[in-house]
Amino acid sequence: MNGPFPLARLAVIGTGLIGGSVARAARQFRLCRELALFSVGPEREAVQAAQIAELVSDDAAEVVRGAQLVVVALPIAAMATILRGIREAVDPQAVVTDTASVKVPAMKLLQEHLEGRTRWVGSHPMSGSERSGFGYSRPDLFAGAISILTPPEDPSEEAVALVEAFWLALGARTLRLSAPEHDRRVAAVSHLPHLLAAVLVRSVDSGALEVAGPGFRDVTRIAAGPAEMWSEILLANRENVLPALRSFLAGLQKATDDLEKGSGTALKDLLSEAALRRLAFRKSSP
Amino acid sequence: MNGPFPLARLAVIGTGLIGGSVARAARQFRLCRELALFSVGPEREAVQAAQIAELVSDDAAEVVRGAQLVVVALPIAAMATILRGIREAVDPQAVVTDTASVKVPAMKLLQEHLEGRTRWVGSHPMSGSERSGFGYSRPDLFAGAISILTPPEDPSEEAVALVEAFWLALGARTLRLSAPEHDRRVAAVSHLPHLLAAVLVRSVDSGALEVAGPGFRDVTRIAAGPAEMWSEILLANRENVLPALRSFLAGLQKATDDLEKGSGTALKDLLSEAALRRLAFRKSSP
Repeated sequence: MNGPFPLARLAVIGTGLIGGSVARAARQFRLCRELALFSVGPEREAVQAAQIAELVSDDAAEVVRGAQLVVVALPIAAMATILRGIREAVDPQAVVTDTASVKVPAMKLLQEHLEGRTRWVGSHPMSGSERSGFGYSRPDLFAGAISILTPPEDPSEEAVALVEAFWLALGARTLRLSAPEHDRRVAAVSHLPHLLAAVLVRSVDSGALEVAGPGFRDVTRIAAGPAEMWSEILLANRENVLPALRSFLAGLQKATDDLEKGSGTALKDLLSEAALRRLAFRKSSP
Repeated sequence: MNGPFPLARLAVIGTGLIGGSVARAARQFRLCRELALFSVGPEREAVQAAQIAELVSDDAAEVVRGAQLVVVALPIAAMATILRGIREAVDPQAVVTDTASVKVPAMKLLQEHLEGRTRWVGSHPMSGSERSGFGYSRPDLFAGAISILTPPEDPSEEAVALVEAFWLALGARTLRLSAPEHDRRVAAVSHLPHLLAAVLVRSVDSGALEVAGPGFRDVTRIAAGPAEMWSEILLANRENVLPALRSFLAGLQKATDDLEKGSGTALKDLLSEAALRRLAFRKSSP
């Protein structure tokens, strides 16, 4: 393999759906000679049993020691503690990335804890699922999906290139965005839709659920995701979710008015434009 | 085969996604000896080329003559003309059913045109898709899906049993509901979600679309459906869609307020309840 791979050592902090899948994929594609995983709680046994890593430990400092690349795959709420725990142990030549869904606060945490110590680049693989945990992790989770990179201001190009090469090697496509621009975009296509799906599921009674077909199933699938994680995400990005919500509410209020007035033309215009945009998206999206 | 099948003759009026799939499935499962299809417009050539029917014609009276079961698979706006055209030709012993998505107006049309002439039972197979037209029709479209039956007041049990046996023979599960109850339920799980998906697609800019992942893809898939058909459905059922919309809007306004106030507990409660309900639905739905 060309370029920086295989790394002598890769550290993955967190073994949920994303961290577990990063680990499985890195192993399968032979991106490292040594894989070290930080795993806590009841999941650790399953991680050990999967036999994909040289080291599975709940000592984060031990896990990152000697790693050229450290992937922090934790909820934002858990990041501060871990970053504090690894800052002395991480190699100054290493590159640290994370996978948090909201990049402005994640980048702030990375800077706060790693500045002057090592280099970091934000990452967000758009490969979530309503399933969570190591049990659903799989090596092809990133194949064909987009991983967004959010480099810090005045980044080390070498560090960005390493993280980009890593996601590409896992089968992802990549896109570089500023952290604020990332947060604005995912508010619209990920965080707002999650809230809509949840409100919709809760507004439907059991008689109606009984007749629900494939359309309803798809529209609401994401609402089955982990509530704790999603409320954290929505709060962390509320600065962007709220404007997206208000714009959606205005559009829905307009559609309600059109329906109330029986304005078939206005409704058809809305639905035609939406259908055209959705068909174009289907064509552009694998 | 036991029971009423094979019918000597089955007539299907309309060869779009639903009518075409009814025809293909009836042929594959040998539910009739003779299959007669009413097809107009550019699609007729494809229907003829598929060689699934003994008769493909744009003369509706010719198609229904001698049929024991007539399936009208047309948009509501096209039903009146066709029902007027077949009322003299249809056998008094025949049973007529339709597949319209809104049953109160469909049942009114059936009664208006067939009362005193023959028996009818409403049907609504919950097997739509964002794809439309004969080109996407397939014999397994109804397999495992629910077909809702809406018998008229004081129905002929024999007629209801025939229509029910027909959908069961096509692989569907069935449920009997009054037409108003049907319309109330599908407003919540089909018509409202369609409107939400359309408004969401239109509220997202192209930068955001660029980073959209599988969640967004699923939430908005149905918005690619035919605009003309859906605006007709929404208008025909607005009496039920509007209350569903208002209840959804109230729920979304509450979530917006909670997010604005930064109330993590309220958000987590909403998301937990939605996740639990959606997981239960996943288990009950094949």
